Amino acid sequence: MKKISLLGATGSIGQQTLDVIKQHPEKVKLVAMSLGENVTLGREIIHKFSPKLVSVKTKETCEVLKSEFSTDIQFVYGDEGLIEVATYDEATIVLNAVVGSVGLLPTLKAIESKKTIALANKETLVTAGHLVMDAAKRHGVDILPVDSEHSAIFQCLQGEDEKNVEKLILTASGGSFRDRTRDELKDVTIEDALNHPNWSMGAKITIDSATMMNKGLEVIEAHWLFNLPYEQIDVLLHKESIIHSMVEFHDSSVIAQLGTPDMRVPIQYAFSYPDRFPMPASKERLRLWEIGKLHFAKPDFDRFRCLGFAFHAGKTGGTLPTVLNAANEEAVSGFLNSKISFLEIEEIIEEALEKHDTIQKPSLDIIQQVDQQTRVFVRDLVDKK
Amino acid sequence: MKKISLLGATGSIGQQTLDVIKQHPEKVKLVAMSLGENVTLGREIIHKFSPKLVSVKTKETCEVLKSEFSTDIQFVYGDEGLIEVATYDEATIVLNAVVGSVGLLPTLKAIESKKTIALANKETLVTAGHLVMDAAKRHGVDILPVDSEHSAIFQCLQGEDEKNVEKLILTASGGSFRDRTRDELKDVTIEDALNHPNWSMGAKITIDSATMMNKGLEVIEAHWLFNLPYEQIDVLLHKESIIHSMVEFHDSSVIAQLGTPDMRVPIQYAFSYPDRFPMPASKERLRLWEIGKLHFAKPDFDRFRCLGFAFHAGKTGGTLPTVLNAANEEAVSGFLNSKISFLEIEEIIEEALEKHDTIQKPSLDIIQQVDQQTRVFVRDLVDKK
Repeated sequence: MKKISLLGATGSIGQQTLDVIKQHPEKVKLVAMSLGENVTLGREIIHKFSPKLVSVKTKETCEVLKSEFSTDIQFVYGDEGLIEVATYDEATIVLNAVVGSVGLLPTLKAIESKKTIALANKETLVTAGHLVMDAAKRHGVDILPVDSEHSAIFQCLQGEDEKNVEKLILTASGGSFRDRTRDELKDVTIEDALNHPNWSMGAKITIDSATMMNKGLEVIEAHWLFNLPYEQIDVLLHKESIIHSMVEFHDSSVIAQLGTPDMRVPIQYAFSYPDRFPMPASKERLRLWEIGKLHFAKPDFDRFRCLGFAFHAGKTGGTLPTVLNAANEEAVSGFLNSKISFLEIEEIIEEALEKHDTIQKPSLDIIQQVDQQTRVFVRDLVDKK
Repeated sequence: MKKISLLGATGSIGQQTLDVIKQHPEKVKLVAMSLGENVTLGREIIHKFSPKLVSVKTKETCEVLKSEFSTDIQFVYGDEGLIEVATYDEATIVLNAVVGSVGLLPTLKAIESKKTIALANKETLVTAGHLVMDAAKRHGVDILPVDSEHSAIFQCLQGEDEKNVEKLILTASGGSFRDRTRDELKDVTIEDALNHPNWSMGAKITIDSATMMNKGLEVIEAHWLFNLPYEQIDVLLHKESIIHSMVEFHDSSVIAQLGTPDMRVPIQYAFSYPDRFPMPASKERLRLWEIGKLHFAKPDFDRFRCLGFAFHAGKTGGTLPTVLNAANEEAVSGFLNSKISFLEIEEIIEEALEKHDTIQKPSLDIIQQVDQQTRVFVRDLVDKK
C-alpha cells in the first residue's frame, strides 16, 4: 500500500490525483492533504477520502473544519501546516501539486523526511533545482515526475543507461494561440488564452502554455531531473499532444511515450512506478488510426519569446531561473487580473531578466530573497502598465 | 568483445551486419560466416574480415576458395557446413540472416550450443516457433530480434514487466502497392513489386511487403518472441516507417521506438544489448520536423488477404504456419520467376492452407515433412498456372 500525502488537493492535478486514488483503493491511500481557497470542495474530499491530516490556508478555516469533522482528523494551517502535510510520518509518497514557487519549501522538507517525491510543481525545480536535486541525492530520495512530458521521458528511460542518451525531445502543443501570428496576439482576451486545445489544466499553466513559458519551465525542469546540459534538450511542436515526449539515444534510436492527453496516466505512473497499474476498461485508449495524422514542426523562438528566455535563464543558471519563474508568475497573475495584455507578459519578464545581476550557487535564503524582490519589481511594472 | 557467426553474409542483412561490425572493431568481431550464390562478394568479405571459418554452398566452391586463401581460414560446405558455422566454438552470437525456412536447423543447433541468437530469419519462428522457443528456454539462450519491428518492441519492453503489456502494435508501411486498389494489382510487374518505398531489402521480403505477408509472418514471429496471444497483437498501417512498432501497457501508456528506416540500428542493438553503441555522427538522425507528418490507418484485410491468412494460420497453430510459410516461399519464387501473377501468390497460399490437415504440436521431422510436401504441392500449382 502506498500512502499519499497530497499538496494541493483542490486544484486540477489534485482532483485527478484523487481520481487515481479512488481507482486503486487496494494499492494507494490518501493519508494527508492540503487545500487552498476552495473550502467547499475540500470538505467533500475530506468526507470521501478520510485523510488523517489536513492543512488549510487560514486559522479561521482550520477552526471551522475542526468543528465539523471527527477528532480522528487533525487540522493544521498556513505555511507550517503545509510542511506538516509534506512530512507526515505515515506518508510514503508526497505528491506536490501546488502552483508556483510556494511549492519549494514543502518539497525540501519532504525530501529531508525521506519521502518519495511525485513532483507536479515544476516551479520547485526551476527556482531551486540545484538545492532540490542535491538534497534528493543526499537523502537517497526519488524525484518522480508528474508532468506528462517528464513522465514520458522517465518512462522512455526505463531499462536504459543514462550514458547512452543523446537528446531529450520535449513535445509542445503550442498552446491556445499556436496558429496565430504575433500580430494576432495583441488583443487576445483571457478567455481566448484559457481555451487550451488538448489539455484540461489550471489557469496559470494554461496561460504558460499559450506563451510557451510552460515549455521553457519544462526544459529547465528536465535539465535538473535528468541531469543533462541544455544543449541536449530540444523542443518540438506537436499539436496533437499524442507523443508526450521522446528520448534519442546515441545509436540514433528514439523511444517515445504516447497516449491520449490525460494527466491521470502520469500521476498513476508516479504511484505505480516501477510497476504499472491497470486503467479501467472505460478509460479511452489511444487509437492512432482514428487520429490519422500526427504533425511536427520546429518552434519559432521569435514567435514564442518566452521559450528563448527560459533557455537563456537555464544556461546562465544561478538565480536567473528564479527571476524567470517569479516574474512569470506575477506577470501571468497580472494578465489574469486584466492588468496587462497578453504580449506584455513577455515584455515584463524580459525586463526583469535584464535588470537582474545573477548570483551563482545561491542558498535557499538568497533564492527566497530574489524571488520576493522580483515579485515586488514585477508587480510594480504591472501596476504601471 | 562479442564474436559473431554470421549466416547469410552476402545477403542484404548480411551486408548491413558487416557494416555494423566494421564500425565497432573494438566491440564486435566476425569469426565465422556462410555465403550463398554470390561467391565474388563472399571472397571480398573474407579478404576484409578474415573470419576463421567459412561455409559455402557446394564442395566445388569450397575447394576453389581453399586454394585461394591461407590455411588459417577453414572452409566447409553444404547443410553441414552451415551448422558448423552456427555452432562454431568461438562464436558468442549467431546472427541468422539466411532467407527462408532453411534457417531453422542451424538456429536449433546454435541454441543447443548455447549461442545467443540474433534472429533476422523470421521463417524460423513462423515454421517452428514452439520448438525454437522451447529449446531456447531449455538451454537458457536469448533470442534477440533483428527485424526492425520486433527490435522496436524489444526496446520498448526494456525495464517493463511483461504482465503489464496489453498489446503489441506492429506498424506496416503497406509495401510497394499500398496506394493501389485490388483491381490495380492484377497486372503489376516484378519491377513494380521490388520498388519498396522506404526500406532497402532483399527480393523475397520486398515481395512479402507488397502482399503484406511479411507483416503476417511478423505477427506470428511476435507471438513467439513475446509470448502473447494473437488477440493482443495489432497491425497498424504507417506509411512513413518512422515508428517501427509500439507496445501498449495496461495503464493505457504506449511506448514506441522511432528512427529513420535503417536496418543497421536493430542489427547493432542485437549486438550491443542491453547496452547501446554510438552510431557514427555521419549517420542520419531522425528529424521529425522535416518529415512534418506521420500517417496511420487500419489495414484492410480484404485488400491485404495474406495478413488474414497469417492470423488464421497463427491462431490455428500446429503445422498450419509451416504450410503458410512454405507455400509463400514457393509462390513468391514463382512470381519472381515470372511463372505466376502477383495476385496468384495469395490464391495459391489460400489453396495450400485449405488443403492441409493441421497436426498439432508437430515434431521437427513432421515440420520438415510438411514443409517439403507443401513445396511440392505449390510448385505443382505454380507450374499449372
